[in-house]
Amino acid sequence: MDGEGAMLRVTVRGFALDEVSKSPIVLLQPVGREEVMPIWIGPSEASSIALSLSGEQYDRPLTHDLLRLVLDGLAVQHQRTEIVRLENNTFFARVLLRQRNDYVSVDCRPSDGIAVALRTRAEIFVDKELFEAQKQIIRPREEGELEES
Amino acid sequence: MDGEGAMLRVTVRGFALDEVSKSPIVLLQPVGREEVMPIWIGPSEASSIALSLSGEQYDRPLTHDLLRLVLDGLAVQHQRTEIVRLENNTFFARVLLRQRNDYVSVDCRPSDGIAVALRTRAEIFVDKELFEAQKQIIRPREEGELEES
Repeated sequence: MDGEGAMLRVTVRGFALDEVSKSPIVLLQPVGREEVMPIWIGPSEASSIALSLSGEQYDRPLTHDLLRLVLDGLAVQHQRTEIVRLENNTFFARVLLRQRNDYVSVDCRPSDGIAVALRTRAEIFVDKELFEAQKQIIRPREEGELEES
Repeated sequence: MDGEGAMLRVTVRGFALDEVSKSPIVLLQPVGREEVMPIWIGPSEASSIALSLSGEQYDRPLTHDLLRLVLDGLAVQHQRTEIVRLENNTFFARVLLRQRNDYVSVDCRPSDGIAVALRTRAEIFVDKELFEAQKQIIRPREEGELEES
């Protein structure tokens, strides 16, 4: 139950839109739970995540596709993406990579960590204490917005 | 002088804006030459390139910064970015990576290849025949636009 250890596996439940800033919000939902954790992200990261969820692909690799191609080319396994903490209104994440017996952890924005994980099929985790502090219930109206974006 | 072999080293001369589509254009200039080669790129790639040229950095890593951090973490050297051909109005590029004695070439969009090269300090090359076919003289008015963007 300590901060560093306990993690919840999440999936991308969908998107919402910040009504004031018009910034996209990605909603992460732990497996088997009803609540979601909202994370404010940039518009191009949101479209990259949405595109990956849709199963479609552009003819040419987006930046997150390039990252996946680089990992593939180097035979690096993307083990997981972790969203680890919130500091000054900024979420911090990391991608955990493995190449043979080397393990590398790289600091990233949650949006990038999620966008890459959807392409490498790596699992996404959220620190349990962070989730419990940030969780929200989805209201029907937000679900509607979610489908529009 | 063959297509695969002859390459010109280029630097990012600046940006222009497509007057019709309002799409950003990055201008690549071979060392010691007056002409530039324009490549149409996306707005978020343009800001990532511009930010890197300015020497500034956000607090948190952008996607291209993440790619550099991954390469650093894995002790991979970004040897060069090459812009290799134009096909159906789309420029094709690749990043050439080296890890110990392994060499990997990864297909990418020129904008991503440039944005990463500016962060890893890798050199950027353009196929000579491609450059000669696409080169343009910068007119003063375009220079003005360049500084505005």
